[in-house]
Amino acid sequence: MRQMRAFSDARDWGRFHDLKSLTLALAGEVGEVAELVQWLPAERAMTADPPLRERLGDELADVLLYLLRLADVAGVDLSDAVLGKLARNGERFPVASFRGVAPERQ
Amino acid sequence: MRQMRAFSDARDWGRFHDLKSLTLALAGEVGEVAELVQWLPAERAMTADPPLRERLGDELADVLLYLLRLADVAGVDLSDAVLGKLARNGERFPVASFRGVAPERQ
Amino acid sequence: MRQMRAFSDARDWGRFHDLKSLTLALAGEVGEVAELVQWLPAERAMTADPPLRERLGDELADVLLYLLRLADVAGVDLSDAVLGKLARNGERFPVASFRGVAPERQ
Amino acid sequence: MRQMRAFSDARDWGRFHDLKSLTLALAGEVGEVAELVQWLPAERAMTADPPLRERLGDELADVLLYLLRLADVAGVDLSDAVLGKLARNGERFPVASFRGVAPERQ
Repeated sequence: MRQMRAFSDARDWGRFHDLKSLTLALAGEVGEVAELVQWLPAERAMTADPPLRERLGDELADVLLYLLRLADVAGVDLSDAVLGKLARNGERFPVASFRGVAPERQ
Repeated sequence: MRQMRAFSDARDWGRFHDLKSLTLALAGEVGEVAELVQWLPAERAMTADPPLRERLGDELADVLLYLLRLADVAGVDLSDAVLGKLARNGERFPVASFRGVAPERQ
Repeated sequence: MRQMRAFSDARDWGRFHDLKSLTLALAGEVGEVAELVQWLPAERAMTADPPLRERLGDELADVLLYLLRLADVAGVDLSDAVLGKLARNGERFPVASFRGVAPERQ
Repeated sequence: MRQMRAFSDARDWGRFHDLKSLTLALAGEVGEVAELVQWLPAERAMTADPPLRERLGDELADVLLYLLRLADVAGVDLSDAVLGKLARNGERFPVASFRGVAPERQ
């Protein structure tokens, strides 16, 4: 996040990095991930072979960079938010009831 | 990532966590972020006030969790991918040429 | 929709056009729209100049084509669905209460 | 499109309907479609059973409404754009070469 902020500051890109623009950029990068996997046959979608892994790594990095930038601009402490979410998910989806059962909305 | 994997393993959710399903889940969560900011007036989109920050934190955490899970399933080392990307971006967008200029596709 | 189906049948692409793959394709195309508008300054986002209009037309057409294909595969009558939705929206957002007020979730 | 415009004009919502906000709304609705299909097992994703069809119809209608609104604001003639795209796709993906072969990027 610090590197991203410095990168952006050095180029005076902060003016472009409002919440709406960054969310659009995030949707754009997730769209690129989608294009990489959309026609994979189901039986080849359990993992990625090396060429796909390489391309996915590249796009997932872009998703993470915009996500960090968005959290930074929104003033969100992402570590805090994730740890809180993991704790709540543990209570919301007890192992006893959800073993092998996909939740309606996970 | 380790916590997410343990969470998923304990519930035997690995079977649902193929590349296509996780990318759809990622798009779903980014869609929730979009719904939080879509009607913000431009002049209020430079940062988030506390109630919006709280809700954004919640959704950004979901995005990060699915992103980590997707990287795990794809065998992507996300730290490596991000550091590589930052280095390449530094070369691709030199400060001298890109100061104050939004790239066509950043 | 008929043209899309014939196009797909002629190429035996029906096997790729399940609900999940088509939704990923839809997210991919919406991502391309997002990339076209993400860095537009707010004051230039009220409409599109001719070069942007041309590129948007191209991407919006892709969104529509996948949307029609997805509705076809899901057995959804999209005209019916849209007319029903417009009628419900008219009741849900009465002019008297919503004039000039963006709904929380429109 | 006319109905959507009249609906929006009656509520003075045009001020919210710039290209960036509408693209975010579109991404939000596509995210809701994604959430409906994300955990479907591959073998049940070839079509939708009646309850899923109903819910998909609802969300696909929202996608179409924002898509039409976005085209209207951008000044895009969507019928023209789609017919042009279908013609170009016919040349780009000749039946002889693409029968049964998913294109890299369709």
